[in-house]
Amino acid sequence: MSVVFAKGFTTASIASGVSSVEGKKDLALVVNNGPLDAAAGVFTANRFCAASVQWSRKAIADGHLRGVVLNSGCANACTGAAGYKQSQTEAETFAELAGFDSATDVAVCSTGVIGDLLPLDNLLTGMKAAFPTLSDSAEAGKQSSIAILTTDTKPKTVEIEGNGYRIGGMVKGSGMIAPQLATMLCVITTDAVVTSEQMQKALEHGAEYSFNRIDVDGCMSTNDTVLLLASGASGVTPDPEEFAANVAKATANLARQIIGDGEGSAHDIRVTVTGATSEEAALACARSVAASNLLKCAIYGKDPNWGRVVSSLGTVPEDVAPYDPNDVTVDVNGIRVCDGGKPGQPRDLVSMEGREVHIDIDLNTGSDAEATVWTDDLTHDYVCINADYES
Amino acid sequence: MSVVFAKGFTTASIASGVSSVEGKKDLALVVNNGPLDAAAGVFTANRFCAASVQWSRKAIADGHLRGVVLNSGCANACTGAAGYKQSQTEAETFAELAGFDSATDVAVCSTGVIGDLLPLDNLLTGMKAAFPTLSDSAEAGKQSSIAILTTDTKPKTVEIEGNGYRIGGMVKGSGMIAPQLATMLCVITTDAVVTSEQMQKALEHGAEYSFNRIDVDGCMSTNDTVLLLASGASGVTPDPEEFAANVAKATANLARQIIGDGEGSAHDIRVTVTGATSEEAALACARSVAASNLLKCAIYGKDPNWGRVVSSLGTVPEDVAPYDPNDVTVDVNGIRVCDGGKPGQPRDLVSMEGREVHIDIDLNTGSDAEATVWTDDLTHDYVCINADYES
Repeated sequence: MSVVFAKGFTTASIASGVSSVEGKKDLALVVNNGPLDAAAGVFTANRFCAASVQWSRKAIADGHLRGVVLNSGCANACTGAAGYKQSQTEAETFAELAGFDSATDVAVCSTGVIGDLLPLDNLLTGMKAAFPTLSDSAEAGKQSSIAILTTDTKPKTVEIEGNGYRIGGMVKGSGMIAPQLATMLCVITTDAVVTSEQMQKALEHGAEYSFNRIDVDGCMSTNDTVLLLASGASGVTPDPEEFAANVAKATANLARQIIGDGEGSAHDIRVTVTGATSEEAALACARSVAASNLLKCAIYGKDPNWGRVVSSLGTVPEDVAPYDPNDVTVDVNGIRVCDGGKPGQPRDLVSMEGREVHIDIDLNTGSDAEATVWTDDLTHDYVCINADYES
Repeated sequence: MSVVFAKGFTTASIASGVSSVEGKKDLALVVNNGPLDAAAGVFTANRFCAASVQWSRKAIADGHLRGVVLNSGCANACTGAAGYKQSQTEAETFAELAGFDSATDVAVCSTGVIGDLLPLDNLLTGMKAAFPTLSDSAEAGKQSSIAILTTDTKPKTVEIEGNGYRIGGMVKGSGMIAPQLATMLCVITTDAVVTSEQMQKALEHGAEYSFNRIDVDGCMSTNDTVLLLASGASGVTPDPEEFAANVAKATANLARQIIGDGEGSAHDIRVTVTGATSEEAALACARSVAASNLLKCAIYGKDPNWGRVVSSLGTVPEDVAPYDPNDVTVDVNGIRVCDGGKPGQPRDLVSMEGREVHIDIDLNTGSDAEATVWTDDLTHDYVCINADYES
């Protein structure tokens, strides 16, 4: 159902020839038919952000969007003024086809190779051909979620029933483990009656605890875009907290799917740090552990290597995360392999056969702040995909 | 010649049975026969530092050392009070054998598996057997540089002729790309007449521009130790600046050898950032680019992927490194593939056949600060080594 699970939205997709993979669907349109057109967005913080991000930031500045055009196969990033003009032309063409007042009613999302301009004729011709096929059918929703994929191996969608309203969405991305190729694009729709301010707050909170916690190596993509659109078609004004909780549920669900489809991955790794003096401290520790190539290789080799956990933990400065190394415990899949900074239970007791690996670190500071980060293991397939990908 | 290139030093090595590899030399002794015994050291900043590091920090606190014992095969890290006692016993035994006044005349260096105690009987028995074989022969120097290796594929030594004095040294480490396994140990010796204060300053400066600039992923080892010992046996008091420059030459040479033997690596990658507003800004940019798994995979695939260079560059916050993305140029092996944040020369012009890859980034801020970081590519062999290593 994807972006059409909520009422008031239609979508269409097509193989436009932007992607170099012949016949691959590479273009998706999403239209908000109202009655509302409130919108919120979060974008990459990368200073080399793509033309599409530059355009979409401008388009959403007034808190309203009526349509989104997304393409895979070309990121339109690092393409200068010519690239920006392309994004603008996409929005103008969409607005004209849809009868919108302004091109700034349309956000643009691109993903794929960096440094190339779009084959714009293909894209515009595709958009015109796809426009009459806009539909709120489940199949249309599914096909759009397929059209935005690049190195992903499966589509990723979410459907959440709120109290009288719905939230649906789609995402592409093979994880922040590959932030540049697998630039994350996400469109979430709702038929709730909500304001753009309320949506922005809910989206920022949801993204912080989902997409921002699958970050592995600190590298941000040039194209990351997460949009939330509200049609108000349900006529229901939700309790603000319940709405925010459901948005967070949607982003967490989609983020988890990204990890489950991480490039070349064989394990999904949850790193949870508890007993920290603050959430920031816990998060800094979890991020540091989750970013360790050595640990990620060990997990691939089914080795519950707690030495690689604590050596990453030990790189977090004391002023960022106060703790005593002699108090730290590390559990891998429920077995306490490190106890008080020293060896604990034999690591042979740890089963590493499942896809999920749980690493639980207790800093035992006496405070109870915690944070969780998800990551993938580092495998031969990851190297293959990223050594051979046509840049 | 290694640590015995400078006059006044002897060394010995032996297969003591600490390493699980049968018959592998795994223990080395270095003795400073004076007349001076000034010493300097820099150590890992990891909060889970090894017992050997804790001991050696204490031993060198007075600026004097007469001996160093180094072992491979076991890091004696995360081993608590029992591990510390082992390091102390090593130093006490060495001091007794050598007739030193105090165990704190002896530094201890360990490298290998984290979380295991040393097989101390093996080590002490080996030390006693090796002690009578201490020698200043070239072969003894070479054998000691072999005894400290773990995943390294070749010994790494340096010999520098100063103005009337000598500096020699040995290092082990397969790069900071594998900081935990390939924990770096380095002993540099000189027969110059220098003070420990002067040596400490020279060593810190040299390490900052060498070992601290081959850091790839921000992960520090638990065991990194770099020691500088002076015998004064040449009788020559060098010009302080010339001496510091030669120490820096020695550390740079050894650091470069580590990159050349990086685990599983197929390319040595030099990342140089120029035109920055400050050296700190240039260094932050160079480190960010050098830490990108995506770029390292691309280089392995012989792809001069400048998109992965600028997307890493774009993650450095503006307050850390002010620059305009539209002014940035990127040259790979002399070809300007990115010009003003946009595509430049065709990437087909770039030859990627050599082992060295040079990435030159000009931020063009109008200032001329610069920094260089070396790294390795990310290969199938890296994954193999670190997924299969017995932890």
